[in-house]
Order: sequence, then C-alpha cells, then structure tokens
Amino acid sequence: MPRQEAEDAEPSPQLTPGATVPGTHPGDRYIRLVSAADLPLRPVGQGIYIAEPTQPEGPIGRTWCALKRLLIGRPLSTAEAPHERLSKVKALAVFSSDALSSTAYATEEILRVLVLAGMAAYSFVLPIGLAIVLLLAIVVISYRQTIRAYPHGGGTYIVTKDNLGSYPGLVAAAALLTDYVLTVAVSTSAGVAAVTSAFEQLWPLRVELAVAAITLLTIANLRGVRESGTIFALPTYMFIASMYTLLAIGAAAWLGWGVTLHPIPTHVPEPVQPLTLFLVLRAFSSGSAALTGVEAVADGVPAFKPPEAQNARVTLAWMGLILGTLFFGTTILTYHFRLVPTEEETLVSQLARTLVDGSPFYYFVQAATASILFLAANTAFADFPRLAYFLARDRFLPHQFRFQGDRLAFSAGIVVLGVVTSLLVIARGASVSALIPLYAVGVFLAFTMSQTSMVVHWLRLGEGRRPWASLAINGLGAATTAVVTLVIATTKFVHGAWIVVLLIPLLVAMMLGINRHYRHVAEQLRLSPAEIRRRQRPVPRHVAAVVPIASLNRASFRALEYARSIARDVTAVHVASEPESGEILRQRWQEARLDIPLVVVESPYRELIGPLVAIIEKLHLEKGSPFITVVIPEFVPAHWWERLLHTQTAWRLRRALAQIPDLAVTGVPYHLAE
Amino acid sequence: MPRQEAEDAEPSPQLTPGATVPGTHPGDRYIRLVSAADLPLRPVGQGIYIAEPTQPEGPIGRTWCALKRLLIGRPLSTAEAPHERLSKVKALAVFSSDALSSTAYATEEILRVLVLAGMAAYSFVLPIGLAIVLLLAIVVISYRQTIRAYPHGGGTYIVTKDNLGSYPGLVAAAALLTDYVLTVAVSTSAGVAAVTSAFEQLWPLRVELAVAAITLLTIANLRGVRESGTIFALPTYMFIASMYTLLAIGAAAWLGWGVTLHPIPTHVPEPVQPLTLFLVLRAFSSGSAALTGVEAVADGVPAFKPPEAQNARVTLAWMGLILGTLFFGTTILTYHFRLVPTEEETLVSQLARTLVDGSPFYYFVQAATASILFLAANTAFADFPRLAYFLARDRFLPHQFRFQGDRLAFSAGIVVLGVVTSLLVIARGASVSALIPLYAVGVFLAFTMSQTSMVVHWLRLGEGRRPWASLAINGLGAATTAVVTLVIATTKFVHGAWIVVLLIPLLVAMMLGINRHYRHVAEQLRLSPAEIRRRQRPVPRHVAAVVPIASLNRASFRALEYARSIARDVTAVHVASEPESGEILRQRWQEARLDIPLVVVESPYRELIGPLVAIIEKLHLEKGSPFITVVIPEFVPAHWWERLLHTQTAWRLRRALAQIPDLAVTGVPYHLAE
Repeated sequence: MPRQEAEDAEPSPQLTPGATVPGTHPGDRYIRLVSAADLPLRPVGQGIYIAEPTQPEGPIGRTWCALKRLLIGRPLSTAEAPHERLSKVKALAVFSSDALSSTAYATEEILRVLVLAGMAAYSFVLPIGLAIVLLLAIVVISYRQTIRAYPHGGGTYIVTKDNLGSYPGLVAAAALLTDYVLTVAVSTSAGVAAVTSAFEQLWPLRVELAVAAITLLTIANLRGVRESGTIFALPTYMFIASMYTLLAIGAAAWLGWGVTLHPIPTHVPEPVQPLTLFLVLRAFSSGSAALTGVEAVADGVPAFKPPEAQNARVTLAWMGLILGTLFFGTTILTYHFRLVPTEEETLVSQLARTLVDGSPFYYFVQAATASILFLAANTAFADFPRLAYFLARDRFLPHQFRFQGDRLAFSAGIVVLGVVTSLLVIARGASVSALIPLYAVGVFLAFTMSQTSMVVHWLRLGEGRRPWASLAINGLGAATTAVVTLVIATTKFVHGAWIVVLLIPLLVAMMLGINRHYRHVAEQLRLSPAEIRRRQRPVPRHVAAVVPIASLNRASFRALEYARSIARDVTAVHVASEPESGEILRQRWQEARLDIPLVVVESPYRELIGPLVAIIEKLHLEKGSPFITVVIPEFVPAHWWERLLHTQTAWRLRRALAQIPDLAVTGVPYHLAE
Repeated sequence: MPRQEAEDAEPSPQLTPGATVPGTHPGDRYIRLVSAADLPLRPVGQGIYIAEPTQPEGPIGRTWCALKRLLIGRPLSTAEAPHERLSKVKALAVFSSDALSSTAYATEEILRVLVLAGMAAYSFVLPIGLAIVLLLAIVVISYRQTIRAYPHGGGTYIVTKDNLGSYPGLVAAAALLTDYVLTVAVSTSAGVAAVTSAFEQLWPLRVELAVAAITLLTIANLRGVRESGTIFALPTYMFIASMYTLLAIGAAAWLGWGVTLHPIPTHVPEPVQPLTLFLVLRAFSSGSAALTGVEAVADGVPAFKPPEAQNARVTLAWMGLILGTLFFGTTILTYHFRLVPTEEETLVSQLARTLVDGSPFYYFVQAATASILFLAANTAFADFPRLAYFLARDRFLPHQFRFQGDRLAFSAGIVVLGVVTSLLVIARGASVSALIPLYAVGVFLAFTMSQTSMVVHWLRLGEGRRPWASLAINGLGAATTAVVTLVIATTKFVHGAWIVVLLIPLLVAMMLGINRHYRHVAEQLRLSPAEIRRRQRPVPRHVAAVVPIASLNRASFRALEYARSIARDVTAVHVASEPESGEILRQRWQEARLDIPLVVVESPYRELIGPLVAIIEKLHLEKGSPFITVVIPEFVPAHWWERLLHTQTAWRLRRALAQIPDLAVTGVPYHLAE
C-alpha cells in the first residue's frame, strides 16, 4: 500500500518557498505557498517595507474588485492628493454654487407662505425680499472680517472651538452636519423640479430621479471629485449668464421694449389663513434659505492663489453682489407678472416661459438651473465628509470617518450622507416645500456661532489692539443672525423645524458620548513607564492550555501537538451531547495511549458551547495560572459553500470565549484539500 | 499620586476564585470571576462531569432566552424522550389523519379536471373513483406484507436502502422529502379552504391564514408535539363521525326518506377541452392524491402495543376501509347532486350545505374537516425532520439536521419545512388546485420503490423459503404503482409535475455531493496508527510568533508578553496607513528599549489587511519554521454597541489569515472596564 505509506511519511520540517509546494501536513498538500519575491512588499530600509496594492483572491473577491475599479477607479496613493490653487474667477465658481443656486427656489418659498393669506398678501414679497438682501449684506460683510482673522481657513467648527470652546464647537458642528444633509436634499429636489418643470411627463418619477441623482453624486464622490475650478466654472457661469439674460428680457418687457409675452394662466388662490405678522415672518424664514452656503468662501481661503485673504474677500463681495441682484431681480419680476407657485412647475420656469416660452433659451435656463443645483448638492458631498473627518480626528465621531478610501475620498462620510439624504428625500417626496421648514435653522445657528466667535476673537486681542470696526460688524452680524435663528426656529417649528431643534442636541450628546468612550479607552490602554520597565524582565514559559475536541482526528491531533509546543500543561476536553460519543472517545483515547488528560462533560440538554465555556472556566480556576490558552482545532474547507455543511462550532466558541478575561484563544487550522 | 501608583502595582500572579475579584490586568479590574462551585457542572467520576442547562448573560441574551422559553418551553434532557405505545384505536388516529384528510379534496380535484370537457364528462367521476378505490386496496394489501417483513418499522428510505441499495434509497428519500413539503402545503391550503367555505369573508385572507397556520405548526413542533394518541384521537374521530353522518343523511335524501334539500345554484361550465383519454387519466392522477399517507402505519409499527405487527396490520386494514368508503361515498353523493367545483367553496362544504345548510352540524363538518387537515400537515412536521435526521446520520444532509433542540425536536428540519412550505403556499396562492399537480408524484414514486424493495426482499429469502403469495402481492403493488407514477408524471407534467420530476434528481445529486464532501473530510482527518505513534515523541518548543500592533499600548503590550511566553522568536509588525504613524511608533519603540524587533510596512494606498498578510507570509517564509503563530491584540469593549466605534481590524485580519496554512492565530483579549 504505497499510498498509505505516503501519508505516514514524516512531514518535511522545513518550508520551501516557491509555487505549488506541498504544505507541511497532509491536508495542506495542494495549497500554494507564495515565494518571497511574489509578495507585494518593497524593502526600503532595515525593517521597513512599502506595500503595493494587493489583489483579492477567489472569483467573488476578484469580481467585486473589478466592479469597484469600474465604478470608483484605480486606487490612488496618499502622495497623489491634489493641491490646486484657484484664481478668483474659478474660486467664485467652486465656492458659490450652493449660495447662488438658492435663487432657484427662495422667492418661490416666500410666496408659497404668503399666498396662504390670498393674493392680498402678495405684495409683502417685496419688503421680505429687501430684508433678505439686507441680511445677506450683513452676513457677507461679517464673513469678510472672518477671512481677515483666519487667512488659513475659517471653518465654523474650528473658529467656534477656538474661541468659544469645545461644547459650542460641537453645537456648530451638529448644526452644520444637519445643514449639509438638507443642502443635498433641497438642492437635488429643486434640481429635479427644474427638470420636471420642463418635461412634465417626468413629474411622477421625481422621487426616483432625486434618489438616482444622489446615488450618482455618491459614486462620483467616492471616485473622488476634485474641486476643480475648470469643471465647476461651466455650470456656475452658465447659470449666472442665463439668469441675468432672463432678468434683462424681463426688464425690457416691463419697459415695453417689444418683448412678446406668453402669459401663463394662473390660478388665484383662496385665502386659507389671516395675514398676520407671524405669517410674514414665516415667509421671511422660508426665504432666508437664500443665504445658505455664503460661509463657503471663508472656509476655503487656503485654496485661493496668493494673496489668499485679499482674493477671498474680493470673491466673497462679488458673490454677495451676484446673489443679491439675482434673488431680488427674480423677486421683482415674479411680483410684476403676478406669478403664483404651483405644485408641478417652479417659479423660475414660469418666469422663463412667460418671457421666452418654446424657445431653446427656455430649456437652456432650466438646464443651467438644474446643473447649478446638482453642483450645490455636490458641494455638501465635499463638506460633510470633511467636517466628519475633523470631528473623528477630535474623537467626536467614530474612527471610520477618518479613513480615506482607495481614491482618497472620505468614504464613510460620503456613504452616510448619501444614505441619509436618500431616505430624507423619499420621506418628504422630493418636495422642496416639504423640506424647507427643516432647512436654514442649522445654517443660521452656525452663522450665529461663527460671528459670536469672531466677537470673542477680537475682544481677546487685548486692550488697544482691538479693531473696533470689525468688532462692531461681527457684533451686528452675530445679533442679527441670532434673531433670525430664533425667528426661523419659532415660525417653522411646527412645520418641521422641531426635528432639527431636537436633532442638534441629540447629535451633540452622541458626539460627547463617543468622545467619552474613546478617552476612556485611551486612558485604559495607556502604558505607564513602570509597566514598560517591567517588560525588561524575562517572561516565564506559558503554563496551561485547554484543547476542546470533537473526536480524535488529524485536526484535533494537530491542535494537541500545537498546545504541547506552547504550554507545559495541556488538557483535552470533550462535550458529549450524545451519550455514547463520550464513551467512544475515552476508549480511543486509551487505545492511543496519549499522555494528555481527557475531561469529558456529558450534556444531557445537548448544549455544546455553554458546557465548554464552563469546563474551560473550571480548568482556568484549577490551574491557578494567570493566563491560559484555549487551542481550537479548526478545519478549513476548500470552498466557502462547504462551510454550510459544518456547524461552525469553532466560531461560536470563539465568540463565547471573547467575553472571558485572561484567556487567549488560538485557532489551529487544518486546511482540507480539493 | 496614589492612583497612578495603584496602576503601576504588580498584578497578582495568582487567580483567586470568588465573586467580583479583580482580573490580573488593570483593564480587567471590574470583571467578575465565577467560583468553581457556581459553574453549571456536576462531577460524576474521574474527569467526567454532567453539564446543567446554562443561562445566557446580558440583557439581550436573557430576553431572547425568556422569549424562547415562552414559545418553546423549558429544555428537556435526552433522557426525557417519550416512549408511548399506542392501542389500535389511538394508532388509527395518529397514523391516518394524512390519508383520511385527503377525502376533503380528492373528489373535487377529479371533477375540476373532468368539467374542463363540460358536464358531458361528469359521469366519468364514478369509474375514476372506483379505480382509485381499487388502487387503494392494492396498496393497503401490499403494505400489510411490508409490516410482516419489517415488524420493527418499514420506513420507505430504510426498506429501499436495505434491498435496492444506496442510490434507490436516496431517490425514495428525495421523493418523500418533496412529498412531505406538499402534504403540508396542500393540507393547510385545504384546511383554510374548509374555513373560508364556511366564512366567505375570510376568503381574501386565505394566503395569510395558511402562512399563519404553518407558523403555528412550526412553533408547536419546535415545542415538541408528542404524537400523543389522546390528543390526536379527537379530531380524527370527529372527522370520521361527521363524514359518515353526512353520507348517511345523503343516502337518506337519495332514498327520499324525508330530508329537506337546500339545492345550491350551480354554474354549468362550458366545455373548453375535448374529452380525451388523456384528460380522464389526468383526472385520475389528481384523484390519486387520496392515497397519500397510506404508508404511515407501516413506518410506525414499533409504536404499536404488542403484538406490534399484528395490530398494525389490523389498523392498516381499518384505515383502508374507512378511507375507501368515505372517499367513494363522497364521490357518489357529489355525482348524485351534480355538484360542480367553484373557486370559493369546497365540494364537501357544498355537499354539507345541500344536505344540512344553516344547521350547527354544517359548521361541525367544516370544523372537523379543517382540524383533520391541519393534523395531516402536522404529521409531515414529524415525518420530514425524522427523515432528514436519518439522511443526516448517513451523511447525505448537513449535520445540522441531526441536532435535537431544547425540546428534543429536530429543530433544523422543522424550520426548513416551515420556511419552504410557507414560500410554496405564497407562490401558489394557497390554492389546492394549483398545488395538486405537484403532489402525488413523489408519493407514488416512493410506493413503487418500497414495493419493489419488498419483491427483492422476498426473492432474497432463498430457494424454498419464498412466500409466493406475498411476492405476488408486492409484485402487483410495485407494477401498479409504477404505472400510476408514470401516468401522474405524464398527465400532470406541464401543469407542475415537471418541477418535482426535475427536483428529485437535483436533490439526489445534492445529497450525493454532500456525502462526497463528508467522506472526503473524514478521510483527510482520519489518523493512521503511525501518526498516533509519532505523537509519543516529545514536541519541540514553539519557535516563531508575529504580533501585529497598531500602537504601543497595554493591549499590544499584553500580546507581546504573551507571544514571548509561547515562542522563542517574536517579531512585531506595524502597517502605517498614515505616513507619520510608522515613524512615531519607531521612536516610541526605541525609547521603550524593547528587545523585540519591529518591522514597519508603509502602506501608501492605505490598505491594512493586505500588507499585514503579506508581511506575515514573508516572516513565515524567512523563519523557516513549519508553523508560526500570529498573536493579535484585541480589546473587548464593555458594551456591544461600543464595538461600532472600533474598526474590527482584529476580526478582518483573522478572516484573511484563515486562508493561509501552517498559521495559528491567537487572540489575546484586553477587557475594557465600565
């Protein structure tokens, strides 16, 4: 029987590197060992290597990897991170899409509230519009001070943490996180509305379209969208140009300069509420969404070409000017033509149709509007993961948000944002009006925190060095935005703002809890010098090991051999869930004349894990050794589906033993062939 | 700083059993160690213990356990298995519910096919009914021979395996498995139909009701329903009594003995198919479902009171007689009153309403019919898991089917049956007519295998000792059932029988594949005497260990200490996914003056697991040691939800390392307090 002999032959005690070399045990016969040269490691010094990208093994792993490459692209090394400096023209495009795009819905949302009191309330749109432009001016001038004070970037979270401390910093961060979620939800919903206004047959598909847009943005951002000025410039300037053209045509029509109008049959709404100050304030709150995104320039100062701060201040002023004129121009024309918001068509679309219905320019306006809105959503896809990274770095969010994926994007933040906003859009039916009550609370809270921080910042500069003008400007900014925050929270409270008012403290509490946990862990893991000194003493040889075995076979034999190689005192344990199995094993054990004691636990209730854990704890107590090892024989099937045919006892035992201190758990694998 | 000192104090090298004793490391400070007396183990001899039922720890575990106790009941020990012997009266109740209950739908299913050819074909129901009664007589007489030959239980799988060999045994087993699934599906659907016939407002809920019934049966069987004669007797005899009463009233009405009829307005169907021999055979095939379950008595001989075989033969004869008369009586009365099957009401309900509409007895008939049908489904819940157990014992099904749950029930088989039948009932809309084409193929295939086995059995008895009468009876049985199997498979093929015809060979192939895998594993794991002899030699001390570490902290320190206690040659490895982390660790390493070499792998693509596996493989090749150990520091948070805050690197590393041979993987836990 030559075959039997081959199996009995002494296994080679030496590993031979190279392809398709047999393993040291019969079961490993067909497993290929890689040679050292094949390993994806490049030596660069004594004990230092650089790793090359690894390839997954097996058909499923390779398919998944290929799919990922297709969607996300090849992995980028950390050194490949881009560092682009932006000119003022490009910076305006990159940083203003969020702010400018709100022109697409701000006027409409004011009117939606006003017409609840009927057409009599319609004219209030003008003073409200003016108030919002004034508010915009105050906020822009305030942020110009921030840029001067923080030429290296004045993100709200960092500025607030610096000047007001950790807690207010977290409040600002929580406000911003909710706000970024709403920016994505509102902007994609408004972008889809711009599309469905032009193609009304798509209206029933609006939720699907919005979710598809968010999915595309998620994938694009996982690929790592560079905030490249060139790519961003086109839609932004297309939008600015088309809107100014539209306003010019509107002005010409007003002055009677030969523009043929296409009046839209508007349904004059019945009043359903009395016109109260509260209603006017609520309309103002809805319109204040126009200001979201104004802080972006101040956050991004380091991306400007030098002189950074100077260029950023100029850009911010231009952005304010463009936003102010576009918003107020749209509002005046809407008022002039007495356009009334409807469910199915946006006001901008109504305005464009009134002036240029049927012409290619109408479609150009809608396309430009949709583009800048999706771009605005994209901005939040850059901002949310970056803020989450800063918070994770400060241990206020889970570690996972720190990790940069294959393409250097903060994958966890991007995926979380994509999922949360998709759910929100589905819950609110992709309706801007249903989302707007949740919006702007967070933004204005963040504005208030940021401006208050600036006041503290200037005050700290010390007697005589305080710039009183800046202090006054930021003081005014802080006071105004604080009042507006309160107005928004109050007037929109029952319509949805309560969610955000509740969510922000919950988020802060969660972040504090996470922080407490991480600090706790760090404290418990920190090594004292005395502990390090103790390390210098020799360590005694390991004493006790326990080997749970199901039967006497090669896998358990190998585990027993391993246990003897690491410990002086080895005990084998067996749980007999069928009464005979214990007796059979005891007999085989005696026949084999093994010098390892065998303990049998009969389990009349057919439990396996419970009695195993109990006997291991018992042996642990008896041995009196501070630390014992449980050596688990594991056989590894050649194919994953074969695992279904085995009861995964090893895995369940590991999970149960993980709860017990002073226990090392070792898996000794026995790889099955074929 | 007394607190700092406390941390630096030497940890106790000795374990002290007892409650709330501190662990040996600072992190374990608050973890309670049980005392040996608290452990659920009772010593019964040298190295032998008996385990008591264990209680899960933690609120989730305890809640789950309490819920399980509520639904399933307290655990039963193996010794508590019931051993009831049945009298003939009880045995008839236990073993005949499946067979008798088919009276509730068999006639209806014959007519459903016949009326496709219009009312002209109606009268064919009588000869078909007679043929089925004849077939029943042949099968019953054949099985009486089986009982004589196998007084210890003649289950089809075992009888076939014994006489025809393994492969035919598997074919019979596969046929029976599909058949048990269909018994549950058809019986619950018919039971629900009996209920909705009486309460038509429940008709729209029929699928939900059927799934609810299957769920209840699953839970009841997980509790471990004893096949208790007393419990089973009531519905079975209620059904027999009510049906005979109904037939008697029907006979009285026919003879004009003063029964007031309540004629039902029947819709005379238009012929949609010509009356062909094929259609008649198809009607016969549908009616042959009446015979399912006839084999039950032969399977259960050991449960009878002695003389077992004699009592079983008598019981089987009685069952045949009752089934034959009930079925044929129903068929004749249906024919007499010209009842036509409808979607919403069963024929039995129509018959009962014709004779006793509005009386309490009508509801009694429906209740009795529904009860015996659910009882029939329950029979399959005992048979399927038992057959699966036998197959798993012979290694043709996964091990999991061998395991008896807390209540001694074969949980895996019960759950699988519950899930598969629920899906089937949902797919077929809980309609008996939609299920019937799949039914009976399996049963008659099993009949054929079983009767053929008996022929072989008698032939094997040897020259001169062969009982020619038995041989002739079983030969006739085998030939008849073989022909019927072919007729059923052919006539119902396109209506659904093809699924079963395809499924049976697939199941056989799957079972052979599973068997091949288990045999393969057993061969590879089998120890040769030479290998056991080698074990007597002393084992050399373990050579090499690798410790992957993220930073220098107590958890990694503990792992390093452990590695030094089990191996002579320890290497620490660190993958730096952020460029600075490698340098920081190297400095701390030098400052601590550890005598363990540190290898740093820089990972520019921020991969962690891939490079770790690569460096471990490299060290494995370099050390030239046949077996090395990877010691993974793991810190275990105090609460499960805290695990979300850590990136589970240890777990992912284990999973990756499981694929590499000659590598023991050890987790050294560090339990965090609070």
